[in-house]
Amino acid sequence: MRDLSKDHELLSLNTATVRKQWRLDTIIDECARRGIRAIAPWRDQVAAVGLDVIARQLRDTGIGLSGYCRGGFFPAPDAAGLAAALEDNRRAVDEAKTLDAPCLVLVVGSLPGALQGKPAYTDIARARNEVRDGIAAALEYARAVGMPLAIEPLHPMQAAERACINTLEHALDLCDELDPGRSGMLGVAVDVYHVWWDPKLHQQIRRAGEDRLLAYHVCDWLAPTRDLLNDRGMMGDGVVELKTIRREMEAAGYAGLCEVEIFSEDWWSRPGGDVLDTCIQRHRSVV
Amino acid sequence: MRDLSKDHELLSLNTATVRKQWRLDTIIDECARRGIRAIAPWRDQVAAVGLDVIARQLRDTGIGLSGYCRGGFFPAPDAAGLAAALEDNRRAVDEAKTLDAPCLVLVVGSLPGALQGKPAYTDIARARNEVRDGIAAALEYARAVGMPLAIEPLHPMQAAERACINTLEHALDLCDELDPGRSGMLGVAVDVYHVWWDPKLHQQIRRAGEDRLLAYHVCDWLAPTRDLLNDRGMMGDGVVELKTIRREMEAAGYAGLCEVEIFSEDWWSRPGGDVLDTCIQRHRSVV
Repeated sequence: MRDLSKDHELLSLNTATVRKQWRLDTIIDECARRGIRAIAPWRDQVAAVGLDVIARQLRDTGIGLSGYCRGGFFPAPDAAGLAAALEDNRRAVDEAKTLDAPCLVLVVGSLPGALQGKPAYTDIARARNEVRDGIAAALEYARAVGMPLAIEPLHPMQAAERACINTLEHALDLCDELDPGRSGMLGVAVDVYHVWWDPKLHQQIRRAGEDRLLAYHVCDWLAPTRDLLNDRGMMGDGVVELKTIRREMEAAGYAGLCEVEIFSEDWWSRPGGDVLDTCIQRHRSVV
Repeated sequence: MRDLSKDHELLSLNTATVRKQWRLDTIIDECARRGIRAIAPWRDQVAAVGLDVIARQLRDTGIGLSGYCRGGFFPAPDAAGLAAALEDNRRAVDEAKTLDAPCLVLVVGSLPGALQGKPAYTDIARARNEVRDGIAAALEYARAVGMPLAIEPLHPMQAAERACINTLEHALDLCDELDPGRSGMLGVAVDVYHVWWDPKLHQQIRRAGEDRLLAYHVCDWLAPTRDLLNDRGMMGDGVVELKTIRREMEAAGYAGLCEVEIFSEDWWSRPGGDVLDTCIQRHRSVV
């Protein structure tokens, strides 16, 4: 198992972690000042500054990506909606390519409209079919461009609104169906927040193996958790056995970065510099 | 598939649904007035009135049980705690017997102390071992008394505090380990709220079969859900495909009651009579 205690070479910052404090260009500067060498930015944060500006800033600072957030949200109530989702995913692939990301992370979507409180249908099996077809079509484009897609299984509490793929096993079943040759172009993003509870977690990490393990996200699960979306914990403040899971990831062949992604009203209310400094400290001690 | 539209003979009321409106003796009277023929009471509600008083009232009104809530919470930080939990489960079995319940429902517990915000340890694998050993010991007693135990897998969002068994597959694996002969003394309580999201739900219901399907609980999953514990929906107000799941249950051999269990600050704030009348109406139309 790799030793993280000496430096933070393996730390990546998912930029949603400080999205309420700073614009993306400031986030990149603040990371550069602290020797954080990788980020995972979100499309809306990139768009707010400009894709070309961010691409140049990343080159200038020598900061790389651990992933690009995000593609997905494939299901739709009609053919026009499905086509629009696919077109949007192609644009996300292109942006990821421009930023030289190692993968595009997919939050696959679920019941269309549920995020707005008005699901157009409630048949989750239909949503799962639309997700499968959407990933298949997006993968065709991604292969041509050379951008790997990472399916992120989300916690089952987000199954109605954000993702109908909720276990690593389900995500890997889909990878095997759509990419049986393990080409390296389709895999998973393992976020401890979404999967820590799963009794099959270690088994499925081993099943995934190096070819499929495209990203690793860390934060913590607070007890109690007060909100379904924005109450994630800083690493070390919750109940997730972070070192145990990282050991499994590395034993399975994962040699990439550890990306810190914390959606939290609490941490969003603190000074951004304190948040980054805490991420670095916890990365060295408890990740 | 059974026709529920003509009457509510198959409706059971989990009495937590109106626990903030009424004491249990009043709940039983209000059920009797409406022709609700079964309930699933909680231990604290029974204790508040008296076990013998409730047993007599049930006999007098002809109301039966669909299950007794609850045993479980097996993990503990030390041997004394494990022994105390087992002793408490034996008392729960005895009470279930006194009330002539068809099963004792087990909410198995997880990280001890997490419910109070202070987990004594964070190793969920250890909690799972303690749960297995606890169920094995409780089952020995339950067999002697003749009281089936129903493991209720809880939604993964309750994995830290309330139950480290979070999928039907995991619960059934444990049933197979501890009761390989399918004696009828160990099975599962399937609550749609906890399992609706699971891509393996239908497969695992079929695997369970009549021997293991000891209880069926209904409510609905709201989109959005605003609280991890007390924001369940009334049947028909959310995204759960209730009829599809009941069809699977019945195809697998389940011939028991449909128990309505709604933890909801919203429904607790309404007049109890309105809640019961709505349960009856929705039971006939959407369950």
